[in-house]
Amino acid sequence: MKNLLFSVLVLGGICFGQTKEDSIQFRKISNEILLHGQAYDILYDLTQNIGHRLSGSPEYEKATLWAEQQLKDAGADKVWLQETLVPVWHRGKESLKYKTDKGEWKDLKFLSLGNSEGTGKKDVEGEVIRVTNFDEFNKLPAEAIKGKIVFFDYLFPQQHVETFRGYGEAYIYRSHTASAVAEKGGKFAIIRSVSTGPDDVPHTGTMNYDEKFAKIPAVAVGNTTADMLADLIKNQKLYLKLNSDCGMQPEKINHSVIGEIKGKDDKIITVGGHLDSWDVGEGAHDDGAGIVQTIEILRTFKKLGIQPNHTIRFVCFANEENGARGGVKYAEEAKSKNETHLFALESDAGGFSPRGISLDMDDSKIKQIQSWLPLFEPYGAYLLIKGYGGVDINPLKYTMGVPVAGLVPDSQRYFDIHHSANDTFDKVNKRELHLGAIVMAQMIYMIDKYWK
Amino acid sequence: MKNLLFSVLVLGGICFGQTKEDSIQFRKISNEILLHGQAYDILYDLTQNIGHRLSGSPEYEKATLWAEQQLKDAGADKVWLQETLVPVWHRGKESLKYKTDKGEWKDLKFLSLGNSEGTGKKDVEGEVIRVTNFDEFNKLPAEAIKGKIVFFDYLFPQQHVETFRGYGEAYIYRSHTASAVAEKGGKFAIIRSVSTGPDDVPHTGTMNYDEKFAKIPAVAVGNTTADMLADLIKNQKLYLKLNSDCGMQPEKINHSVIGEIKGKDDKIITVGGHLDSWDVGEGAHDDGAGIVQTIEILRTFKKLGIQPNHTIRFVCFANEENGARGGVKYAEEAKSKNETHLFALESDAGGFSPRGISLDMDDSKIKQIQSWLPLFEPYGAYLLIKGYGGVDINPLKYTMGVPVAGLVPDSQRYFDIHHSANDTFDKVNKRELHLGAIVMAQMIYMIDKYWK
Repeated sequence: MKNLLFSVLVLGGICFGQTKEDSIQFRKISNEILLHGQAYDILYDLTQNIGHRLSGSPEYEKATLWAEQQLKDAGADKVWLQETLVPVWHRGKESLKYKTDKGEWKDLKFLSLGNSEGTGKKDVEGEVIRVTNFDEFNKLPAEAIKGKIVFFDYLFPQQHVETFRGYGEAYIYRSHTASAVAEKGGKFAIIRSVSTGPDDVPHTGTMNYDEKFAKIPAVAVGNTTADMLADLIKNQKLYLKLNSDCGMQPEKINHSVIGEIKGKDDKIITVGGHLDSWDVGEGAHDDGAGIVQTIEILRTFKKLGIQPNHTIRFVCFANEENGARGGVKYAEEAKSKNETHLFALESDAGGFSPRGISLDMDDSKIKQIQSWLPLFEPYGAYLLIKGYGGVDINPLKYTMGVPVAGLVPDSQRYFDIHHSANDTFDKVNKRELHLGAIVMAQMIYMIDKYWK
Repeated sequence: MKNLLFSVLVLGGICFGQTKEDSIQFRKISNEILLHGQAYDILYDLTQNIGHRLSGSPEYEKATLWAEQQLKDAGADKVWLQETLVPVWHRGKESLKYKTDKGEWKDLKFLSLGNSEGTGKKDVEGEVIRVTNFDEFNKLPAEAIKGKIVFFDYLFPQQHVETFRGYGEAYIYRSHTASAVAEKGGKFAIIRSVSTGPDDVPHTGTMNYDEKFAKIPAVAVGNTTADMLADLIKNQKLYLKLNSDCGMQPEKINHSVIGEIKGKDDKIITVGGHLDSWDVGEGAHDDGAGIVQTIEILRTFKKLGIQPNHTIRFVCFANEENGARGGVKYAEEAKSKNETHLFALESDAGGFSPRGISLDMDDSKIKQIQSWLPLFEPYGAYLLIKGYGGVDINPLKYTMGVPVAGLVPDSQRYFDIHHSANDTFDKVNKRELHLGAIVMAQMIYMIDKYWK
């Protein structure tokens, strides 16, 4: 069976022109990065010396200069900044307390969701209504919600092997609860974090307001606290009191940072991640990993003397987390300058052991890339499948029809730490991070060689 | 390409009889373990309330009682202990200092290798000779080594994507250096730990003595210390001073712990891991993970009411680390009782995200199992390949020709923590651990159903 399988794949490969030379180049790329890769070391520098870097923050400015220098050090032929106007959200001070009829107010560990308005530094308190999903919530009349606080106690769907599938189902409980509660006159929304972690770590992340309704606050608690609240409310009334001065501030100019290796022609291949992060933790996996992998690919191409046919752009995108403006601007400028973009690849799913690359493009291109599978399999990348590209490169697809692709790392650990104080350097494994860079570099090498 | 591939696999599957029913059962097993699995919680209990548990230690005795109770709680029809005489090694106190011609003695972070003799509580000191591999060492005449200390500064071969391959190449530098140095009259051996970790953590593990030569001590330092020593010795003489009372003690009786679900017949399928660990860290990945996965499979079969055709044995083997006596005893007893063993599966490569199962059996059986690949792939197990079984089940193969198999988790992180103080519970991810149990349970289900 295995031999038959292998024959089919090799045959497919030969049809599309992969060669012994490619296999040797794959090995060179892998040896260079596994033995001499610097992605892990520069991730240490980014996370320990700058730390988290939300759009509009002083840390993001530092990260911009850092990325510019790193792209130069890695050997880019040219490095420049691309201006982007970004939304600015500020957390400020925040406190959340709970009590029952019998007890005193006690502090809760929590985080306001990103983009959430605060309480204007005033206490906002009320009785809590718990629902486990939108079906339950939607059945409640407005009078049951008016003046209350709604606890959306939706469990992360752990039954999916791919955690991004669970995230896709749970996401709406982070993004849409505040406006849903506001529509029925509630005071604020509290959610069980969108988290796979068996712990008490709250996770932030973007929420959106429907402009039709009042902009009430939305906050998140970790799984352990959510369990406790769910337990308390079974037999007694539960009250919460929130005080925060979170909120939006005037927009600012931030920059995406772009490095380039000049090709023999002007057609462009883009590879990137996003430089901004949420304002807790260190933005290590999300998306420091994607940034340092991107820079590692540049370094490796230069070190190995790979002279590409097409121009390769290494992009550290601005403002993925709470606006996606960097990616939009990049595509706008590409279109306005009439650039020809062949392909774009993003790493924004964590620096974990790669399992493949997801492909968002027409079927004939997917089939061609799948024919390269025997080349990738020795590096642990066995999935070359139809799927998602990335937030920052999708605008290239929407505006110009560019084929886009995303690195698919093992997803089991990602939503334990995503958007939380636990997204720190110590959660990143050097070899896993470097293997991701290897698989991406190999894919860029193949696309550059075989796509015209 | 993907469709063709899939057709080939599905066709293969149908030939060998996999059914829609199997796919449904796979899903049931997965849902049960991802949503209600207890492996992670009992691993917490084992690692935090007992901790490491070297053969012959009081902790191993506690772990024996713990495993007995866990197997009963998980619903075993029968639980018993199997006596095994085990070697007992004790670390005792140990200290290692270094100095150059100019400096004072300074402490080094290190570990004596497992089974190593000590210095009889006396200081043993001398000048250090550094070699990077056995080729270099073998070229040195005995007079260059006599009275000296040899530093084997062999780098873990990081270029291999599969870290077990690197381990296979580096292993000899842990196991054989002491006797090699003793043969040429050296005082003791110090090695760079067999470790992929970019850190200063020393790793222990078994070393062996050649009875022809003096039993001199062997110790290991972490990568950072090894780098420092390598750097110091470039331009000056380096001295080390070891004092330790490590050594072997009289053998003791320990027990493997065995639980059983009675089948419709007396043919036996074995699944297991090893209950002992090294005497540092918590034995979380090595091999607490294999133990709790084994118990999880039992719990899941009982919970789902899977009544097996054959008898399934869930074995917590004694003494894998420094003697492998538990596995040998299990096979001896199986043979002496004329038991018929159909299959054995071990998890002893860490509780990381599974990538497949390696198969050590004849090709026709491998082909049959490979025909089941489409069932396993949705659970991330894409490798059903010829390979290694496990230390504890290999005696079944050698003495009775039993087909054996081993869980293949992602290997990138394993040798960062293997046999070190860093092999702790916090390095284990709940979903990854549980996915391993899922893939193992699914394999046991298939073997039980289709093998006669």
